[in-house]
Amino acid sequence: MKAGFIQFEPIFGEIDRNLERVESLIEKADADLLVLPELFNTGYLFTSKQEAIDLSEEVPGGKTTQMLCRMAREKNLYLVGGLAEKSGEKFFNSAVLVSPEGYVGTYRKVHLFFEETLWFDPGDKGFEVYDIGKCRLGIMICFDWIFPEAMRVLSLKGADIICHSSNLVLPFCQDAMITRCLENHVFAITANRTGTEKRGGESLHYTGKSQITGLGADLLYRAGGDTEEVGVVDIDVEMARDKKLNDYNNLFRDRRPEFYGDIR
Amino acid sequence: MKAGFIQFEPIFGEIDRNLERVESLIEKADADLLVLPELFNTGYLFTSKQEAIDLSEEVPGGKTTQMLCRMAREKNLYLVGGLAEKSGEKFFNSAVLVSPEGYVGTYRKVHLFFEETLWFDPGDKGFEVYDIGKCRLGIMICFDWIFPEAMRVLSLKGADIICHSSNLVLPFCQDAMITRCLENHVFAITANRTGTEKRGGESLHYTGKSQITGLGADLLYRAGGDTEEVGVVDIDVEMARDKKLNDYNNLFRDRRPEFYGDIR
Repeated sequence: MKAGFIQFEPIFGEIDRNLERVESLIEKADADLLVLPELFNTGYLFTSKQEAIDLSEEVPGGKTTQMLCRMAREKNLYLVGGLAEKSGEKFFNSAVLVSPEGYVGTYRKVHLFFEETLWFDPGDKGFEVYDIGKCRLGIMICFDWIFPEAMRVLSLKGADIICHSSNLVLPFCQDAMITRCLENHVFAITANRTGTEKRGGESLHYTGKSQITGLGADLLYRAGGDTEEVGVVDIDVEMARDKKLNDYNNLFRDRRPEFYGDIR
Repeated sequence: MKAGFIQFEPIFGEIDRNLERVESLIEKADADLLVLPELFNTGYLFTSKQEAIDLSEEVPGGKTTQMLCRMAREKNLYLVGGLAEKSGEKFFNSAVLVSPEGYVGTYRKVHLFFEETLWFDPGDKGFEVYDIGKCRLGIMICFDWIFPEAMRVLSLKGADIICHSSNLVLPFCQDAMITRCLENHVFAITANRTGTEKRGGESLHYTGKSQITGLGADLLYRAGGDTEEVGVVDIDVEMARDKKLNDYNNLFRDRRPEFYGDIR
């Protein structure tokens, strides 16, 4: 299947503009699956809880999820994109999965980073895998990468491809994803944003370099650091399902959970 | 503390020669802790179970552990070294820890690689951390690196430094150890061997590049690919004990094991 990412620069708070930008990029893409950055509709650098309240949307009723559903239907593809989710009195840093048939599911970021802990509630649903026919998708968001348990759980649950919506500001994740994909024998699509946000005396520079990571430490695609870019590669997802390393070793069968007790 | 590794080329089956070689290298080193490669006393490329039986030694009574104890006492340091262990009717790919006061403990490789599964029994004791005063040590052997649970368990049990006796033939481990040390905020010493073994129609080339990995993706030392080399760096082990990343995040406190259920 053809799978990839959209890397672009959202403008903080300008949801309509950001949706239009993404819509035009999806329009031109040739893919079965595209992953968008974390909080692609709102931007990242919130400065108050009130901003998170004002910019969050219900899922799937809000306009961001509705736009994604419409584009998925028109282009006959799957989309994963990060957005600020309102659910009753709670607000989550979430990513939704939509299909040509409509809304499929939501992942709520389990490991919040830095001031996100002030604006958002921690994810309350854990890590789910979605079988979309062509492949089984796992979703995680940005900082989740540093906890090996996130991709491990998704992979053990059968994910072939990890959709990794991100707003990365540090240089470590991309190389680490090579290790993550090697240890789990899965593919991963890390969709990062670009640009610099300056708000309320703070400044964050996002590092781009969105990445599609293959099996066996194979780097399939790495985007530029500040480019607007749609990266798509052909992925043979079946390859992720056989965890055999050689005639004697299998990455999952060889695990010895009886000795991993303290991980819980 | 001064911690490091000995990288050298063992000759298969020539235990006395290998012990002498290591003894002379320890003799010249200035360190508080040295890690030796996996199976440093016997070499790696066994071709029959009988060879494993013939070359294995009891711990701590065998001559390899006794040599290490003597050197630890004379040089007032700690040593971790890999050897073939005989225990009753069982044979393990093990690593022993010895102190200036004598034998401390043994780690038996939990995740056996390739034909090791024919010659050795899988480790039956799990992952232990040893408090040696100057630091808390965890031990793992070679292929254990690809299972994130190994270093995770050792780190959650309080290890400051992971002693990683290895016989690496593939190029992936050293970069992965940067991720491992980043995700666990610990130090690691990967002691690899060098040279090529040709036995029974098989051939293995060991890639050297023994590595001391620091915190925050900091590569403290990487040896040459085919050098006999003793690498030692100053490590401030206290730095590994604070898992705080920033004012909002702590690598261990932020774990959410309620969502990691499928890891066991």
